[in-house]
Amino acid sequence: MRLAIAGAGAVGSSVAELAGEYGHTVTAITDSTSAATDPDGLDVDAVLERKNTEGIVGTADPVDALDADYDVLVEATPTTLGDAQPGFGHVTVALERDRHVVLANKGPVAERYGEVMALAEESAGEVRFEATVGGAIPVLSTIENYGPGTITAARGVLNGTANFILSRMAGEGLDYEHVLAEAQDLGVAEADPAFDVEGTDAALKFVILANVLAAGDREYTLDDATVEGIEAIPPSALELAREDGRTIRLIGEVSGGEIRVGPRLVSEQADLAPSGTRNIVQLETENAGRLNLSGRGAGGPETATAVLSDVTQLAPRAP
Amino acid sequence: MRLAIAGAGAVGSSVAELAGEYGHTVTAITDSTSAATDPDGLDVDAVLERKNTEGIVGTADPVDALDADYDVLVEATPTTLGDAQPGFGHVTVALERDRHVVLANKGPVAERYGEVMALAEESAGEVRFEATVGGAIPVLSTIENYGPGTITAARGVLNGTANFILSRMAGEGLDYEHVLAEAQDLGVAEADPAFDVEGTDAALKFVILANVLAAGDREYTLDDATVEGIEAIPPSALELAREDGRTIRLIGEVSGGEIRVGPRLVSEQADLAPSGTRNIVQLETENAGRLNLSGRGAGGPETATAVLSDVTQLAPRAP
Repeated sequence: MRLAIAGAGAVGSSVAELAGEYGHTVTAITDSTSAATDPDGLDVDAVLERKNTEGIVGTADPVDALDADYDVLVEATPTTLGDAQPGFGHVTVALERDRHVVLANKGPVAERYGEVMALAEESAGEVRFEATVGGAIPVLSTIENYGPGTITAARGVLNGTANFILSRMAGEGLDYEHVLAEAQDLGVAEADPAFDVEGTDAALKFVILANVLAAGDREYTLDDATVEGIEAIPPSALELAREDGRTIRLIGEVSGGEIRVGPRLVSEQADLAPSGTRNIVQLETENAGRLNLSGRGAGGPETATAVLSDVTQLAPRAP
Repeated sequence: MRLAIAGAGAVGSSVAELAGEYGHTVTAITDSTSAATDPDGLDVDAVLERKNTEGIVGTADPVDALDADYDVLVEATPTTLGDAQPGFGHVTVALERDRHVVLANKGPVAERYGEVMALAEESAGEVRFEATVGGAIPVLSTIENYGPGTITAARGVLNGTANFILSRMAGEGLDYEHVLAEAQDLGVAEADPAFDVEGTDAALKFVILANVLAAGDREYTLDDATVEGIEAIPPSALELAREDGRTIRLIGEVSGGEIRVGPRLVSEQADLAPSGTRNIVQLETENAGRLNLSGRGAGGPETATAVLSDVTQLAPRAP
């Protein structure tokens, strides 16, 4: 398959680097200000080297990348709320050209799910977005294979930054500000950690899960989620929990059409208390009990693996 | 899709009962001595009621069921070793008729994997067998989606009976014979528990995993596995392990072309020490770290869910 990659951050770069291993060719890469295209396949190393040294991926216009020769658009620009631009625009262009779209960007499927599905319906291309929920963990493909109607609820830990901070606060008795600074030093938290610690990132993932589980019966956006973050949790609350064999985690849940994300008390040994940056999703099934799926929920190669797994599933049905 | 179900035990009956929920029709059911067929769809409740009361599913000959009108043969007869009959014969007939095959029976894909794949190659039908490894846990579909070449090792607990016995022995300080009798009373162990407690059942599942991970480069059978059971573990060994914060589980592994199943020391809190009859599989991936997949590894509805999930994936490509 020929891939056009929109976004040259950690995920976009990793998709470009790993695409060859999976037998794919990268014919276009774009960041917000520049693009490189080659219908015969780009020299990925050279493009990424240029991005590192000159801050651009090539001399072409980003708009041209979307007009390039490709089978699949990999949308890996940053997640934005509300109108979900520019990701939503990229998705629209690709589907209108009857191309497949694989999203790592949560915006379009969290904030404009119905519109994306309507565009896909009119297109010979398909839309997949495994990478948007739980990184490398095969959550959406499991729901797809089981059939969304047979899953009654989904819950779990889908933000590694918040989980790392809570793990460290509980383990070391340190306060939030201290551990956040440490997480920023380690690259586990971003300079502006709001998206992670306020629960927004986790909520977007549970909104996507809600949309997938509803299978078109109802559409959800971030406005439908009840969200509470972890910034106000004092070390004393974690200490009290620990005396009772419990701890606090940022847990999300979709159940009965409700989406909730917030700090919850869980047993220290519970599946819902993964350590460090690990993520976990529990799916409650109608006939087969509970499934636990856990792994690395973020990171360039991890998320790229989910993207390329989606691409693999598109392969037999190229437009 | 129209399903023919070979085998009317716990799994075959559950597939028949749940098929309607997934939009499928059952056109044939057979046990070892009788069959019922109806090209317009059987009255499943009536067939299973007859099985309960009269010991037969209908008045037709089992051989006729394989000649019936169907899109997918669900092979759910008991797992047998060596020639894997009669399952292998059923698979052959269906594929030669260009029908899809979904296996819950481990025999054909553990003992005669190469032959089954060669038959599928010549057929317009496909072969799927998610239900043979870990019941409801989506192990094989995850490997398929990731690409077998990107998984470097698989390990885990894939026999719920052995896991239940070891959990109870460790938890209560009881000896093997005592807990086995209890497990038999609860229906967790069969009257003849050899297949489970000697490690054969788990080994067959790791042989299947080895075949899938090798993707045709090499073929494995039970003879290639090094297998040790749990019958000889004394309560004192579990007690010693416990003093060290550890316990014993029947762990299987496929790595570097080697298949091993046997009792191993693991931390009591480790992912590899699930409680009761739960199963877990860990997949080591090349680019995305470790994935943990856990859930119910056995049971009629649980295994039937995996069968029907396979059927769903065949749907768009009916022969």
